[in-house]
Amino acid sequence: MSDRVPSDPTADIPAERAVVDLLGLVALGELLAFERMAADARLAPDLRRRAALGEMAAAEIANYRRLADRLGALGVLPDDAMAPYVAPLQAFHDSTEPRDWAEAVTKAYVGDGITDDFIREIAGALTEPDRRLVLDVLHESRYADFAAAEIRIAIEADPRVANRLSMWARRLVGEALSQAGRVASADLGALTALIARDERADVAGLFRRLTAAHTARMGAVGLNN
Amino acid sequence: MSDRVPSDPTADIPAERAVVDLLGLVALGELLAFERMAADARLAPDLRRRAALGEMAAAEIANYRRLADRLGALGVLPDDAMAPYVAPLQAFHDSTEPRDWAEAVTKAYVGDGITDDFIREIAGALTEPDRRLVLDVLHESRYADFAAAEIRIAIEADPRVANRLSMWARRLVGEALSQAGRVASADLGALTALIARDERADVAGLFRRLTAAHTARMGAVGLNN
Repeated sequence: MSDRVPSDPTADIPAERAVVDLLGLVALGELLAFERMAADARLAPDLRRRAALGEMAAAEIANYRRLADRLGALGVLPDDAMAPYVAPLQAFHDSTEPRDWAEAVTKAYVGDGITDDFIREIAGALTEPDRRLVLDVLHESRYADFAAAEIRIAIEADPRVANRLSMWARRLVGEALSQAGRVASADLGALTALIARDERADVAGLFRRLTAAHTARMGAVGLNN
Repeated sequence: MSDRVPSDPTADIPAERAVVDLLGLVALGELLAFERMAADARLAPDLRRRAALGEMAAAEIANYRRLADRLGALGVLPDDAMAPYVAPLQAFHDSTEPRDWAEAVTKAYVGDGITDDFIREIAGALTEPDRRLVLDVLHESRYADFAAAEIRIAIEADPRVANRLSMWARRLVGEALSQAGRVASADLGALTALIARDERADVAGLFRRLTAAHTARMGAVGLNN
């Protein structure tokens, strides 16, 4: 988990509005990830794994609380900050309901990985205390390790699973990108401005970096992108 | 939340087996309550309430972890300790899926209340550190307060709701009692021995006390038993 910062973190102090947008987006992401992981826990083959996914889920809602409290401190109702993102994030989850345990852990692994990379990219443009807060809500690596181990176990038990999960991961990324487009238009540009912090709209570069990191993560568990 | 202890807590040191049974039952109760509350959160009328039920759920899985760790320390696989109770507890939840937000918070209110009363009754028969551990997993009163407030809001908005929720609460208790009978037979008597700790099988007295406390809780939110 590298902790990249831009060469000059004070180069562009983001507008309050963009910070609220970002905190709202991340907060809603945590809330919905919590619900979906908690629901997916029922797909677990035994109670130990079922509880493990439940604990991953619980970590998300704890992060949600920190973000919601910060929004409150900024004088914003968390619900208001999250509202613009409900439709696209809900649509992402609705369109990617895992059918079994292997798909559930792959979704957790892929989703958390990309989310963390995205948050790390954005964090550099924030000022304190928001920068620290946003970096703090990155997922614990033990959860990624758990999900990665479960994917490897599934592939070992039946090597054909690798192909199915690779396609599943591609679908997850495709749906995520499709909804990311809606997020970008929903936020009326404030968030995009935050991404394009050095005055060149480097959204293309952001996607390239996210995709490269995702491909590396896929390879690490025996899946291909 | 009174913290009753029997007059002589050392009168009956429970067998290891009964302690494992009890920890397994409470652990599974926490795990399933977590999943159901997390699922029910989707019924919330807004994101704030949705997150609040999610946080209630997360508290359950944290308790699960403590109980599972204690079982591990006793040399027992948590899954083994929980296994006898999966069918009845799952059946309870499957037969009591809330249809709307008011039913969801009523289920949380009723279920947590009875569970806490039951745990307090049993805790007196345990020795340390299990007694302390089990008392620690009692639900925080702020969650009961939240659920009670939501029930009152629902009744205020439409007084006819009180009748429907009263019937719903009766069904919850009926299903719980029905499954409690299965739990009592599943555990081969060890847990029952723990309940009947002063050598008279006071199961009838236990149910009487649980019912009286439940009736009081119902009245406190404008429902009748």
